[in-house]
Amino acid sequence: MGRLSALFDPDTVAVVGATDREGAVGRAILENLQNGFDGEVVPINPSRETVLGLECYDDVASAPSVELAVIAVPPDIVLESIRNLAEAGTENVVVITAGFSETGSEGAERERQLRDLAAEHDLNIVGPNSLGIMSTPNGMNASFGPERPLEGSISFMSQSGAFITAVLDWATEQGIGFQDVVSLGNKAVLDETDFVREWGTDPETDVVIGYLEDVDDGQAFIEDTRTVTRETPIVLVKSGRTDAGAKAASSHTGAIAGSERAYEAGLEQAGVLRARSVQELFDYARALSGLPEPDTDGVAVVTNAGGPGVLTTDAVGDSCLEIADFTDETIAALTEAMPDEANVYNPIDAIGDADVDRFGEALEIALADPNVGSAVVVSAPTAVLSYDDLADTVIEKRETHETPVVTCLMGGQRARDAEKRLREAGIPNYFDPARAVSGLDALARFREIRERTIDEPETFDVDRERARRILARAERRDNNRLGVESMDLLEAYGIPTPAGEIVDDPARAREVAAEIDGDVVMKIVSPEISHKSDIGGVKVGVATDDVYDAYEDIVARARNYQPDATIVGVQIQELVDLEAATETIVGMNRDPQFGPLLLFGLGGIFVEIIEDTSVRIAPIGEREARGMVDEIQAAPLLRGARGREPADVDGVVETIQRLSQLVTDFPSILELDINPLVAGPDGVQAIDLRLTVDTDELDTEDL
Amino acid sequence: MGRLSALFDPDTVAVVGATDREGAVGRAILENLQNGFDGEVVPINPSRETVLGLECYDDVASAPSVELAVIAVPPDIVLESIRNLAEAGTENVVVITAGFSETGSEGAERERQLRDLAAEHDLNIVGPNSLGIMSTPNGMNASFGPERPLEGSISFMSQSGAFITAVLDWATEQGIGFQDVVSLGNKAVLDETDFVREWGTDPETDVVIGYLEDVDDGQAFIEDTRTVTRETPIVLVKSGRTDAGAKAASSHTGAIAGSERAYEAGLEQAGVLRARSVQELFDYARALSGLPEPDTDGVAVVTNAGGPGVLTTDAVGDSCLEIADFTDETIAALTEAMPDEANVYNPIDAIGDADVDRFGEALEIALADPNVGSAVVVSAPTAVLSYDDLADTVIEKRETHETPVVTCLMGGQRARDAEKRLREAGIPNYFDPARAVSGLDALARFREIRERTIDEPETFDVDRERARRILARAERRDNNRLGVESMDLLEAYGIPTPAGEIVDDPARAREVAAEIDGDVVMKIVSPEISHKSDIGGVKVGVATDDVYDAYEDIVARARNYQPDATIVGVQIQELVDLEAATETIVGMNRDPQFGPLLLFGLGGIFVEIIEDTSVRIAPIGEREARGMVDEIQAAPLLRGARGREPADVDGVVETIQRLSQLVTDFPSILELDINPLVAGPDGVQAIDLRLTVDTDELDTEDL
Repeated sequence: MGRLSALFDPDTVAVVGATDREGAVGRAILENLQNGFDGEVVPINPSRETVLGLECYDDVASAPSVELAVIAVPPDIVLESIRNLAEAGTENVVVITAGFSETGSEGAERERQLRDLAAEHDLNIVGPNSLGIMSTPNGMNASFGPERPLEGSISFMSQSGAFITAVLDWATEQGIGFQDVVSLGNKAVLDETDFVREWGTDPETDVVIGYLEDVDDGQAFIEDTRTVTRETPIVLVKSGRTDAGAKAASSHTGAIAGSERAYEAGLEQAGVLRARSVQELFDYARALSGLPEPDTDGVAVVTNAGGPGVLTTDAVGDSCLEIADFTDETIAALTEAMPDEANVYNPIDAIGDADVDRFGEALEIALADPNVGSAVVVSAPTAVLSYDDLADTVIEKRETHETPVVTCLMGGQRARDAEKRLREAGIPNYFDPARAVSGLDALARFREIRERTIDEPETFDVDRERARRILARAERRDNNRLGVESMDLLEAYGIPTPAGEIVDDPARAREVAAEIDGDVVMKIVSPEISHKSDIGGVKVGVATDDVYDAYEDIVARARNYQPDATIVGVQIQELVDLEAATETIVGMNRDPQFGPLLLFGLGGIFVEIIEDTSVRIAPIGEREARGMVDEIQAAPLLRGARGREPADVDGVVETIQRLSQLVTDFPSILELDINPLVAGPDGVQAIDLRLTVDTDELDTEDL
Repeated sequence: MGRLSALFDPDTVAVVGATDREGAVGRAILENLQNGFDGEVVPINPSRETVLGLECYDDVASAPSVELAVIAVPPDIVLESIRNLAEAGTENVVVITAGFSETGSEGAERERQLRDLAAEHDLNIVGPNSLGIMSTPNGMNASFGPERPLEGSISFMSQSGAFITAVLDWATEQGIGFQDVVSLGNKAVLDETDFVREWGTDPETDVVIGYLEDVDDGQAFIEDTRTVTRETPIVLVKSGRTDAGAKAASSHTGAIAGSERAYEAGLEQAGVLRARSVQELFDYARALSGLPEPDTDGVAVVTNAGGPGVLTTDAVGDSCLEIADFTDETIAALTEAMPDEANVYNPIDAIGDADVDRFGEALEIALADPNVGSAVVVSAPTAVLSYDDLADTVIEKRETHETPVVTCLMGGQRARDAEKRLREAGIPNYFDPARAVSGLDALARFREIRERTIDEPETFDVDRERARRILARAERRDNNRLGVESMDLLEAYGIPTPAGEIVDDPARAREVAAEIDGDVVMKIVSPEISHKSDIGGVKVGVATDDVYDAYEDIVARARNYQPDATIVGVQIQELVDLEAATETIVGMNRDPQFGPLLLFGLGGIFVEIIEDTSVRIAPIGEREARGMVDEIQAAPLLRGARGREPADVDGVVETIQRLSQLVTDFPSILELDINPLVAGPDGVQAIDLRLTVDTDELDTEDL
């Protein structure tokens, strides 16, 4: 696949299926291109001599060299058109035509062929079922959508064409400009990850925004995006957040819903700022595209209006920022400069009779404070204050201090001119104090993302071949499930398990128990019996002398409960002291988009009732594994709350990392639960295990 | 205090301190009144003959009869001016003048005198330190603030004058109109509860909105507001939600911050819809002022744009509403009416080429479905769709079906005319689908509030005199604290406690133990020793024969630990079976604004680590008490999760109600904790108790 930049900056664009028939898509695209594109536009249509006054070509072979082709022909001749383009040397294609995978099996087959064609000829294909693409620097609107937006530094992708149409008209009214815009359509070839990669290296793009209904390849997305977000902020609306929304998304674009928790984790690990609404998307984008990064989290609030000042302060309290603690010098300077009735502590209330000079002075003093990393100027309209002058003052102060400043000049018509001036200087103005602060919050959250180190997974020394052999046991099971009898899988990956083994006669049971210090736990091992305790299949704290009888009793109960069950034997296990320990759960299930989703939580009620769990997409390194432990509500219990001895948190973190390595090494493991993983002061031990193996996948796994 | 309606609809308004000096407040008020007020305006100023062309009077005595006076004179002559007004028969006064409690002790004294004066003459006083008041039907702008807003059915109060200034200009641009507007100022006399009461009976007010930094009398507010909200929706921004915001609010208006949790509970119990931002305040108000109530929670989404349709569906998932499940008839009718590519399941995607007729048909069919209680029309701009026509169609359908409909006609300039038409028909249009849904959500939440029964507290048969005597014991304690030795306080209010008593010699200890079935628990009782277990002051499961020795041991340990401690004795208590029971905590502390704040949670880690608690303002009835139990995350544990026997939840609920009665009967109880209240399958028992008593308050409590 060639560089995508040619998609957005071609010298020549062909419209395949160009026509001057009113209302036709092929006409709309041509008109949009004629309206401002600074390159050459080539209509292609065998049944026309000219279209809209331009010379029309029968086919691409007869046309001048074409760098980008936009295809708007019936679905059954799309593939042929693309083949012709490829043969004529055109590498960049936008397929507007619908009637592919979104319409059923025939369309899906057509889309598969289109994908093959792209691979064969190394083509960049956008769509099919796309509204088109736009780029403002060269004036190109290669879409049948709305008018070209204003020029700006935001690049924008959307899985919904209507979303682009809906947003651009509004954005123009708001003075928000764009660099490139792409309607992703069915994403047969190029998807979100490709455009993230492209815009990540585009010096003209300051912010990438997008509307997505799914992510095609979650692993590739995380891998590439987390590199891009070290430089370029990405803000996405990922819809289908709720069950109802996911259902609607799947009927809209046929998106296969991964779980919302997987998206949440995956987007977070990728360094994406996630917006929950269209408004939030643009509130974040406006701040990120025009303002420098804050040095510290302290915010100064400068206002002439007490109430709105308090609202702003509340919004700061809701954000990841904090109200800056002014230095004594700042307080002294403000006391000197402001009238007696003013509040010189943050928020600075310059009171209702503040004019532009007093506002400017307060802002100047605040921005000079080393504890101030950003500022919000909040104003109610008054007779003594010109919003236009205030805008100019804020612009000047912001530039002098290289500090991000947002404004909230409250008011209707009277704020419009000032808003425009501010916008042109890259300062977003918001009517609502809460939204102004959310803009600064986005800047601070992006700084945190940039400062992250890439969380490289550690590669532990493990016995992969042994694990492979253990997993292969699942092939002899009807349900592809493995249980406690396969604890040696964990041993192979260095996850501690209690001493013991599975035995199949009572005398051997006694021998094994004798080798273990103290009493033992005995559990029936049978793939068909999952609720072992309920049928009397578990005995805890059995003394060596009682092991023989206990063995016979357990087996008898199991046979009695389910006569046809396969009895593998009885597990004899070291009795782990649960008194001083905490039961945790470490698990994994595979998400259709993102792959292995790791889960951590405390056992029992915490997972089942409080639903206090954390998740990550594997593979992860130590930072994310530690994050999983830290972010559960009950984390203090592990760290020794309420007079308990702290558990071996490092051991838990390492176990999560080793499990990450295991499930990454073996895509055949569909789901796996270590429940419980007991975490005591001196270490962790996996007490029980269940997993499901895809045996077909297993056969393809090369070691 | 007379009816407040005269404040907003006077025949004659006097401006005390009227002047034609440029920039003076007394001039601004007069100008605002001259601009449109349909009553008589009377300037009062002893040093002028005329002001702005009107005859000016020396004092109110010489002026014509004045129904409302607006005072803008220096602070030191405000009281005299009011006294003159009262003597001349003026009952309604707005004090614009600042320099009262917001400025220090002299001002606070002046404000106290103003309050006395109001009481003496039965005056309605707004302010001091108010921007003024407005009413649109008579064109009255009795403020020095911005221009009079548009006429509408929203009445608006604000504790911040600047908030009014900031909002009205914007609201006019947005086409949002108001009935009455009041700047509350320092609330020396009239406060939020007075205006809630007034507007609750005003047939012209459809919605009350407000910006508050505190609530003066939380108990009165809840009591009166919950009656009003059975008819009239109230939406409030209460700022100072966060710690930073609360600090800012207290430096702004001197508001004494009650706790945010108390406000949250108090506003909820009062039936107030709480907005978190200015935008949310008006998003809710617009829906509540123009639309009927939904019959059911099912929402129909009708769109021409897949992506925005999915976003709308997500927003419904976030709200208290749900995507309506269409009947078979609806599906059949839509299948008939829509093209093949359309999605006829909810959200209805009429696809991109939908014209107004298709939109109208889809909406018509959806609104006829009995499962649909409200609808959102979401549209992206297209070539075949006129937003103006779509607006007309939506207006017609909404009116025919008496069902609330909101719109999200996405776009900038091209949506403006349609938006205006919709607004005039009472239909709010929002750019963002999430905001459109939040409007419908407000309607549904208000319906739930209206449908609530008033939660009358039950009056249990209790021994109040006995409780009074027990509380009086605190007078003999240095720290005013009572502990486990006062468990009889709970008995007096019918809260079950284990059998047993406090004894002061070992022989008696043995006698008491002998009367109790099974083993006993023994605890040192000493006001100075709070961590009894830590010093060996507690013994659990003592057999009757061992009680004598255990007594001596416990007392010896206590004396050894703290030789000067007062040893009241040792408590001998029935051993409660904790195995099958759940430990809960029921407590109370007093909030400065709202009074007794009840708290409920499960014991130990749930309260201390997970912070899983619920709160209410006492007094409460059964519904709120049950709500406290139901809303904690761990509630399923009480109801028998994970194979446990369900606890006596009714017993817990009754205990909460009895505690509510106790702390309401005795304002002298400053804080109280029953920890634990053990809830088993057969009942509840309070095992331990701590409380603090305000002994001064106690003396004033009459029985």
